Amino acid sequence: MTSSLPISVDPTILRDVMDGRWAHVRRDARENLRDPDFAPVYGETVQEARERVTRMAKKLADSGRVGLGFPKQYGGEDDSGGSVTSIEMLAFGDLSTMVKAGVQWGLFGGALQLLGSARQHDKYLRDVMSFDLPGCFAMTETGHGSDVQQLRTTCTYDPETQCFDLNTPHQAARKDYIGNAAKDGRMAVVFAQLITGGKNHGVHAWLVPIRDENGDPMPGVTIGDDGAKAGLNGVDNGRLTFDHVQVPRDMLLDRYGQVAEDGTYTSTIENETRRFFTMLGTLVRGRVSVGGSASSATKVALDIAARYGNVRRQFAAPGDDREIVINDYLVHQRKLLPALATTYALHFAQGELVETMHDVQTAVHARGEQIDEEKQRELESRAAGLKVAQTWHATSTIQMAREACGGAGYLQENRLPHLKADTDVFTTFEGDNTVLLQLVAKGLLTGYRDTFGSLDGWGRVGFIADMVRETVLERTAARALISRLVDAVGRDDEAPMLDRGWQLKMFEFREKHSLEGAIRRLRKNSTTEGMAPFDMFNDVQDHVLKTAQTHIDRIVLEAFVAGIERTSDPDAKALLEKLCDLYALHTIEADKAWFLEHGQLTATRAKTLTSTVNQLVKELRPHIITLVDAFDIPQEWKACQILEEEETRQEVMAARDAELRVQAGEQADTPDATATDLEIAPAQ
Amino acid sequence: MTSSLPISVDPTILRDVMDGRWAHVRRDARENLRDPDFAPVYGETVQEARERVTRMAKKLADSGRVGLGFPKQYGGEDDSGGSVTSIEMLAFGDLSTMVKAGVQWGLFGGALQLLGSARQHDKYLRDVMSFDLPGCFAMTETGHGSDVQQLRTTCTYDPETQCFDLNTPHQAARKDYIGNAAKDGRMAVVFAQLITGGKNHGVHAWLVPIRDENGDPMPGVTIGDDGAKAGLNGVDNGRLTFDHVQVPRDMLLDRYGQVAEDGTYTSTIENETRRFFTMLGTLVRGRVSVGGSASSATKVALDIAARYGNVRRQFAAPGDDREIVINDYLVHQRKLLPALATTYALHFAQGELVETMHDVQTAVHARGEQIDEEKQRELESRAAGLKVAQTWHATSTIQMAREACGGAGYLQENRLPHLKADTDVFTTFEGDNTVLLQLVAKGLLTGYRDTFGSLDGWGRVGFIADMVRETVLERTAARALISRLVDAVGRDDEAPMLDRGWQLKMFEFREKHSLEGAIRRLRKNSTTEGMAPFDMFNDVQDHVLKTAQTHIDRIVLEAFVAGIERTSDPDAKALLEKLCDLYALHTIEADKAWFLEHGQLTATRAKTLTSTVNQLVKELRPHIITLVDAFDIPQEWKACQILEEEETRQEVMAARDAELRVQAGEQADTPDATATDLEIAPAQ
Repeated sequence: MTSSLPISVDPTILRDVMDGRWAHVRRDARENLRDPDFAPVYGETVQEARERVTRMAKKLADSGRVGLGFPKQYGGEDDSGGSVTSIEMLAFGDLSTMVKAGVQWGLFGGALQLLGSARQHDKYLRDVMSFDLPGCFAMTETGHGSDVQQLRTTCTYDPETQCFDLNTPHQAARKDYIGNAAKDGRMAVVFAQLITGGKNHGVHAWLVPIRDENGDPMPGVTIGDDGAKAGLNGVDNGRLTFDHVQVPRDMLLDRYGQVAEDGTYTSTIENETRRFFTMLGTLVRGRVSVGGSASSATKVALDIAARYGNVRRQFAAPGDDREIVINDYLVHQRKLLPALATTYALHFAQGELVETMHDVQTAVHARGEQIDEEKQRELESRAAGLKVAQTWHATSTIQMAREACGGAGYLQENRLPHLKADTDVFTTFEGDNTVLLQLVAKGLLTGYRDTFGSLDGWGRVGFIADMVRETVLERTAARALISRLVDAVGRDDEAPMLDRGWQLKMFEFREKHSLEGAIRRLRKNSTTEGMAPFDMFNDVQDHVLKTAQTHIDRIVLEAFVAGIERTSDPDAKALLEKLCDLYALHTIEADKAWFLEHGQLTATRAKTLTSTVNQLVKELRPHIITLVDAFDIPQEWKACQILEEEETRQEVMAARDAELRVQAGEQADTPDATATDLEIAPAQ
Repeated sequence: MTSSLPISVDPTILRDVMDGRWAHVRRDARENLRDPDFAPVYGETVQEARERVTRMAKKLADSGRVGLGFPKQYGGEDDSGGSVTSIEMLAFGDLSTMVKAGVQWGLFGGALQLLGSARQHDKYLRDVMSFDLPGCFAMTETGHGSDVQQLRTTCTYDPETQCFDLNTPHQAARKDYIGNAAKDGRMAVVFAQLITGGKNHGVHAWLVPIRDENGDPMPGVTIGDDGAKAGLNGVDNGRLTFDHVQVPRDMLLDRYGQVAEDGTYTSTIENETRRFFTMLGTLVRGRVSVGGSASSATKVALDIAARYGNVRRQFAAPGDDREIVINDYLVHQRKLLPALATTYALHFAQGELVETMHDVQTAVHARGEQIDEEKQRELESRAAGLKVAQTWHATSTIQMAREACGGAGYLQENRLPHLKADTDVFTTFEGDNTVLLQLVAKGLLTGYRDTFGSLDGWGRVGFIADMVRETVLERTAARALISRLVDAVGRDDEAPMLDRGWQLKMFEFREKHSLEGAIRRLRKNSTTEGMAPFDMFNDVQDHVLKTAQTHIDRIVLEAFVAGIERTSDPDAKALLEKLCDLYALHTIEADKAWFLEHGQLTATRAKTLTSTVNQLVKELRPHIITLVDAFDIPQEWKACQILEEEETRQEVMAARDAELRVQAGEQADTPDATATDLEIAPAQ
């Protein structure tokens, strides 16, 4: 029923396909940052972890590798995509180090770079890059996380003093979970409501010194410590409270909004909400980095679980002496392989996203072009959607990998506990996943044309009126190929399930139908007498979020198809095709009820679907190790004891079992390799 | 479409319904162990945690509450169910303390009690109870966890010396993950292959001193440390290796197998495999405790997330100033309420299981009756199934709760990180969940009549021949009621979804059909030419495990129905009925594809199912806090900062927001409570 796979595929060819446009950045990291310093350290106290990670940040700065995303005139390379890729590479190692770097150069440095003026760049950017000026990105408040537009901190201009008065009005408005705040930060980019002449102009950002040369808090600044967290304990998250702190006028990051000496406010973007989203939009890099980093952590977890499952034996087959390796069990394959397939799919989608981001940001920030708002909006939606997909995939896959390694997976020395604890927050930071799904949904509902409504209870109710009637799906990459494949599908209920066109068509149909249904229901609610505006949206929230999910699934599948299209080696291509079949069919299987309910699968075909997925995992089983080899994760970064011990241990066990049977007076009917053939690690 | 709920329900009545047969044990714990010592402590080093937990174990011993499960003549109460209930109560607090207690009095003490002789009880039991003799349960080996029958450690009798020679043949046979081993244990119950007269009689257990009075390892014993783990760091897990350690003959725990001075082996149970399972079966208490403890941890997580969601606000409704509490969002309700419903369902199922276990064990161990093998086998299957259901439910629910609390959920001070990390191992210890599902499945396939085949590659191939042809489901509790309800259902495709009979019928149908399908496929494979025995089973492994899952679901639903039947208060009963509807329909919804595929739902009814679940969560929304109040978890045990702060903070925020709007020059159109009305926690 399916083309057969080559017996073996060269993982280095697969790796090269996956490495993509920033292959040089990945190679550089693998070759030059492979020392064990970048691996996590286990059993540290919070203080030890923080101190080590501060040292690592300095080490990274000294390596000269943190400047990729910064302008050339400050020693950077104006390479936005490269900077995200290098964060993704760091995420194979210690995740605290990655986050610390992300805070310093991505968030803090990025805000200064993208929201600040040339004068401010001249003054601070070099020190930021060298880590001589450690800084914070102080956006989130205890009471407001994802809803940034509603921040409560105020910064009020006084023409008398030529200063802003930065103030935290109440405890819920304190800045919270701020990286670099508890220990290292000397300055912070603080987001607050800009008030001048008695009018609120919305959220803006200021550079605010928070510690003096001696490391003591500046007057009016109170610094708290978030203390021990579930993970990422090398990052010093803290709380910042401002008691009428005087901030000089020139500390406003004023690229998108300026305050004159007399307090007059000016901006090239008149609409306040639009200005806010434009400012926020420049910071999309952080979200893209989190998604990519989540995928790196996922790859490490799969690498560990796949290799462990290939040597760990459990229960003997009937009539056999030797026990079976757990990767040979169907249910174990059903855990590992769909997770691997999804990881590959997401990898290609992330690659595409980074390219888009790079091109959009390079046009605006390096070449000084106007922002293409539609492209920017689409970029943000993609970034949000893929952040959601990659971080939830990380959470579930790392959990699965931990369980797949049993007790060994629970010991810190085997890495999985750190992977789990460190990545756990990814689903809720840089935007809570549920809120981000809502953002994606909103983009779909309005065809990106709504004028930047807020993200509150589903935007202004009125937006339904503007709703795009015709929900034509924009295909992503490999458009021509995808159209050809989809058009070639005959009758849906007869198409072979391994027909890529049928798979694509199913993904498209589900998204389109789901979106149309959501629109229909919203319309109906909006004309329902007596229904409160909130309820109109809340009533269909589950439907709308599901629509967003189906959209993301399609983007990911199309990216996988485009990635395969670029693969020239026939063996690597064949393996990727098979893996893509698994991704597509497993995704359809996971939502089988929907396809049955909507007449896209008959009961008979639904059963065929299950057996086809089983057949695919069986065919892919011999390639499990190749698939993780292709991630090419340096051994030094894995910091996993069991990978080093397990193989020897299992060989030894088999040999000694033969002895044991003799000792126990049994017939050693099929003697295995004897002890002397092997390198023995005797007990004690 | 549904009976309406009372406006409010008294949580103490609900609590009393849930407290059940061992209400006195629960009350005692809530009243007398509520001091904060039992709460977890955050930010400790591994060493600090271990020292604290050792002190807590001593404190527990001194409280006299650890003896419940031990015989009366040693100061216990012969109350097996009580002992499990008290572990379940401990699990609301620090989970390391619970596990330490479980190791000492459940596993170590339990093995001594249930596998040892009166002579051995006289000698050791009092010291075990007082914690003067801390001990280990040394079963698992690095290379063999769930497959206990294949342990590699040997214990060989020598009539010359009247001693056994206990030996670890190779590294993979070292005892691993053993609680109490790394620091405290002075003795261990060691499981090993008993060899005498050149013949292996299978796995038995010995009492083996591992440390001398000074705490140094005994000669021949090497003790390793498993080091830092993901969680449970107050428990000192370690590794034990035995280098030909001499163990006197009378240290064999010889209730089920004896070795005479001359080395003659005797046992009342001739069949080796059967003897092995009889011995193991007595230890079912551990598995029951883990399931119950997982549920306690789940309740704490839900308590925190439900209360947080009731005060945390996010985004304003259109046309409204005040932001919406997140419990009012449909998607949030969709997360919390099905998890709550499932937690209640599992609570009733666990209660039933504990009663069964108590009755079976009391008959044998306190009254000296013969083991009723069928009952024992069924008990083990139930214990395995509910351990699986409760531990996986804990893993997913605690994860959900963490995410539902956003950044706050990631801080250790808010408990959720500890809940997550501590319970994570529950899915793989006391039997890996996947292996336990296999055990449940095997019980179903053979109708408990197979003669204790091993759990290897699905037992002997031959067992298919013995397979019970007619798969009549044994109904559990409330048999008469359930039969009546099921029989009263009219045409399936017309029955209202809130008809309990229809729900029960769906659960039954799915289990029966799934089981029959598995049997049919196994039969077919067993007659397929050239199919290897392993493949016959492996080919249907996913189907078979799914069958086990459906069986567990039915048991749980029936227990919930029985629990409601015992509820006399009409308001409490109405609320539980509604919650049971949600459990049943959410479970059907989660497997909707199966019901569609098998003609049990039409597409139209499948859509009705979704809207019915949405309707149920909406109706239950006002009772969320009542539902967690009914868990009656002492505040002292929760150790959650945010529960203490959040309410005040939100009120303050609302008040100050009004001020802010004035300050910003906006109209404060609907002034909220002013600051002076409230107890203010001003910034700084």
